Amino acid sequence: MIATLRSSSRSLPVHLSRAILLSCLLAPIGLTCVAQAQQPATETLDLDMYARIRHEGIFNSHIMEYAGGLFDDIGPRLTGSPSLKKANDWTRDQFTHMGLANAHLESWGDFGMGWQQIGTSALMTAPATATFLAQATPWSPATKGQITADVIAIPELKEEKDFDAWKGKLTGKIVLYGPAPKIDPDAVPKLEHYDTAHLAAIGEFPLDGYNGLREQYVLPDDPAFWEKVFKQMAFKEKVSAFFASEKAAALLVPGGSGGVIHDDTGSSMGWFVYRPDHKQPIAEAVIANEAFGRISRLLSHDVPVKLALDIQTKFTGDHEPGMNTIAEIPGSDPALKDQVVMLGGHLDSWIAGTGATDDGAGAIIAMEAMRILKAVDAHPRRTIRVALWGGEEQGIFGSAGYVRDHFATLQYSTKPEEQLIPEFLRQQTGPVTLKPDHALLSGYFNADNGTGKFLGIYTEGNQAIGSIFEQWGKPLRDLGFTTISQRPTGSTDHVPFDLVGLPGFQFIQDPRDYESRSHHTNQDVYERLSEPDLQQAAVIMATFVYDAATRDQMLPRKPLPHPELVEQRSKPLEGIYPDAVKK
Amino acid sequence: MIATLRSSSRSLPVHLSRAILLSCLLAPIGLTCVAQAQQPATETLDLDMYARIRHEGIFNSHIMEYAGGLFDDIGPRLTGSPSLKKANDWTRDQFTHMGLANAHLESWGDFGMGWQQIGTSALMTAPATATFLAQATPWSPATKGQITADVIAIPELKEEKDFDAWKGKLTGKIVLYGPAPKIDPDAVPKLEHYDTAHLAAIGEFPLDGYNGLREQYVLPDDPAFWEKVFKQMAFKEKVSAFFASEKAAALLVPGGSGGVIHDDTGSSMGWFVYRPDHKQPIAEAVIANEAFGRISRLLSHDVPVKLALDIQTKFTGDHEPGMNTIAEIPGSDPALKDQVVMLGGHLDSWIAGTGATDDGAGAIIAMEAMRILKAVDAHPRRTIRVALWGGEEQGIFGSAGYVRDHFATLQYSTKPEEQLIPEFLRQQTGPVTLKPDHALLSGYFNADNGTGKFLGIYTEGNQAIGSIFEQWGKPLRDLGFTTISQRPTGSTDHVPFDLVGLPGFQFIQDPRDYESRSHHTNQDVYERLSEPDLQQAAVIMATFVYDAATRDQMLPRKPLPHPELVEQRSKPLEGIYPDAVKK
Repeated sequence: MIATLRSSSRSLPVHLSRAILLSCLLAPIGLTCVAQAQQPATETLDLDMYARIRHEGIFNSHIMEYAGGLFDDIGPRLTGSPSLKKANDWTRDQFTHMGLANAHLESWGDFGMGWQQIGTSALMTAPATATFLAQATPWSPATKGQITADVIAIPELKEEKDFDAWKGKLTGKIVLYGPAPKIDPDAVPKLEHYDTAHLAAIGEFPLDGYNGLREQYVLPDDPAFWEKVFKQMAFKEKVSAFFASEKAAALLVPGGSGGVIHDDTGSSMGWFVYRPDHKQPIAEAVIANEAFGRISRLLSHDVPVKLALDIQTKFTGDHEPGMNTIAEIPGSDPALKDQVVMLGGHLDSWIAGTGATDDGAGAIIAMEAMRILKAVDAHPRRTIRVALWGGEEQGIFGSAGYVRDHFATLQYSTKPEEQLIPEFLRQQTGPVTLKPDHALLSGYFNADNGTGKFLGIYTEGNQAIGSIFEQWGKPLRDLGFTTISQRPTGSTDHVPFDLVGLPGFQFIQDPRDYESRSHHTNQDVYERLSEPDLQQAAVIMATFVYDAATRDQMLPRKPLPHPELVEQRSKPLEGIYPDAVKK
Repeated sequence: MIATLRSSSRSLPVHLSRAILLSCLLAPIGLTCVAQAQQPATETLDLDMYARIRHEGIFNSHIMEYAGGLFDDIGPRLTGSPSLKKANDWTRDQFTHMGLANAHLESWGDFGMGWQQIGTSALMTAPATATFLAQATPWSPATKGQITADVIAIPELKEEKDFDAWKGKLTGKIVLYGPAPKIDPDAVPKLEHYDTAHLAAIGEFPLDGYNGLREQYVLPDDPAFWEKVFKQMAFKEKVSAFFASEKAAALLVPGGSGGVIHDDTGSSMGWFVYRPDHKQPIAEAVIANEAFGRISRLLSHDVPVKLALDIQTKFTGDHEPGMNTIAEIPGSDPALKDQVVMLGGHLDSWIAGTGATDDGAGAIIAMEAMRILKAVDAHPRRTIRVALWGGEEQGIFGSAGYVRDHFATLQYSTKPEEQLIPEFLRQQTGPVTLKPDHALLSGYFNADNGTGKFLGIYTEGNQAIGSIFEQWGKPLRDLGFTTISQRPTGSTDHVPFDLVGLPGFQFIQDPRDYESRSHHTNQDVYERLSEPDLQQAAVIMATFVYDAATRDQMLPRKPLPHPELVEQRSKPLEGIYPDAVKK
């Protein structure tokens, strides 16, 4: 998943507590009214199919083979890179090979630059020799081969006049940029498993003013906050331009401790470093916090430090198309086969590991779910469509592009300063415009919280679906699937569906070491995968999409969000204080 | 500390349950009888000095400055390396600077080769690009610059006929040697703190047949075990000779997971790779288990793997002298000043980190304890002597050499096969021969269990000292020093003292992440240090050596071990079964 940001809060609340038919009220102002079917109180489950899916997924699993091919062989899959292209081709071919229909790649637009890390090494040569843990930051240019240079520590620059103190002092030097991370000798990665009590808490909807959002990092609506963000983004690019103009040799930033370093710091010098017009002008690497701290302490005690630094990277194109891999099991019921149930995860990753848990796990869970459904000869009434997205890590681009091209368009602010942040974070400025297929998508099921097993599912505030998921999940309780939560979750590819009023869901996954170790780090590799958890997840994914594709009704929807209505609702009532003096 | 081996078990049990005067009984068979003084029931404590030591150690601490100079600037300190020499000189000069007397270096013998890692990098170039975590194994020769070569996986070779299958197949290849470590997605480093219950258990002496040794890895006395060890050691050198003769380009072994890799695998190709006559003939590096696993899985699925490997190392001499740093606060009491209380830790380390917790922590605790004693103007009656040992990691050489040169000699097996393992593991073959100073050493206090605070002390089965330590420790209880254990502990520099009947002690330290993360790994750096714990340890170390140097009596001793007596004791009694048929 993308770094934790609650994107929808910046746009419009999607968890309206209005009547289910609200979306029809919007028809007069340009929205198609989707007539929602009456939902039955009891789900009819095909328990024979449940058993076959489960047997195939647990006893004939091939999920670790997908893991081997995708993570070990193809490796990390940065959006725009040759490896992601290879992964797109490979997943399309795997889908064809397992007998799916219509396996193909679909562009979601011009992403920007293709880029690949060839290899990075950072060796200290004075005052002592040391081999440091280092990785290029994504889209960093290369150093001119291995450079051996003095290191200079520069504190965080906050405004342009801070540049003055460093002018003429950086030529040929390696810049150690920003403060050394604090020493925390107690920081070790945690392996966390949700217990019954924790799951029970997730299953409760807290009416504490946060409406279930407290556990998320919620971006404030405060314009002052955003002004600061815009300024920072613009200023970061000025900083790297300054270092480059001063002919510094390279830039080092701290990346994490204990052998775990983050590789999503491409934005440390600006968000859009992958676009040719924002290309970073100086080579940059993340190094272990311990290495950063050591150099920093030495320099602060007047000990000159020299490094031999080699950042080898390669740009492979300025306008690489962003691609999603798509394939289907066509629906078998003539009356329902145009309706679609989707599932997926994102295929792109960061670079230092192999993106095994973010979100390789989601991708292979989706692949294995499709394989299981073919292997058990399922004939779903609706079409089941799998999508492996690109560009999630830079802004949920693949799924948002797919939603835009197939289901509905959104209107975003065109203010120049908002163009410094990705679309999904920009202010929404108008109503949703629906396309005909909007009426045909029953729901989308996403997996993007690591390798942990599925312990339940978030309804995203779609209350009507709670009881349906409860019933679907009941035969899966012994696999650990127990919890239906009305809470919203964010930061990944179900959000674009949710934003246009389509049912999009993310599962509750056992956290394991996702947050503490593998998410966006060099440690996100095959060894972090839990095979039994992945098997369980694929079984549940296959079962849920089969259920959705086989029941009589489409899944119930939340009301469509609409700015006018929201604005009206958020206005205070008038005349409430009868004795208030009129101004 | 050295990898956990209970050395004394291979020689002679030192925890004899005989009367305290036993050592005198040995005089007729060549041992000097040390007349032990009657110990008082109550210790007289200088509580004013307790308070001054504590105030100086906590409020005026300089221990993190020693850490900065020793770990950040000087770096890792492999025995024989230029860095250890620099550290020896620096510690000697620091001791002089803090006002100690007689600061000097003392050789404990010819160690072997000087060696230094310049830097190591391992990049995968096919089938994908990747930057792997890697370190040269100690005393590995260098590759010829950066070599790019195919990797070949070779299973563990167990006997010479296993070589045949690989003859003619290794030229120019990088050998991935041995099985890939098992995947354990649950393995994360642990941060452990001993709680009251755990400490209470350590404080109990279990009469379970192990006599307190259960928590140690006890080397068996079984000759078959040792025969196997000798064979393995000899065979490992044959394996590397085979790879070299087949002109393999380099050798890779797995080193650890989750960003933590071990650097004490110099013995993976034989114990004595630091001796010119056992010099390893092929360049070798440890790589992260994840990298090893990835390459291994790819090769097993017929995917060719290429690496760009650069192991840069330098040999700096064939016969580097092993050195200890020694300094003193001379005793102030004319009657007692020839008697000595010692303290110390080992200055040498492995190579991938900076040896901050093993045993840099012990070294700076000892340095800071001496600084505190000078700062508070302590005038101990006996001489307090600090020793920072070398060669601990390869066989407790520095302290054993010091004991041999000053206090007593031991006799070890001269069988050729026993020469393949370090002296401290060899079979002892005769009685201890004492030197005059044996009678003058009151005790030795060692710190070598990481950065954790001192929670108590092991008496090494010296029961008479339990009550003394209890009384010394009582005013320190609020600092967390609570537990006196009669159990023995092993694997570090107090052992050579203990082996010749001298009181040598190791403190009980809070484990923290020593075993799980920093012990012999690339993560053993400044950031692993806990400043408050180190301050506490220095205060307790200073207090204990001051107490030992100031009380009226020398510390009580355990009886000297002696082979004849042990042999006699271990013979079964005769005539116990009156009806047994004589053979």
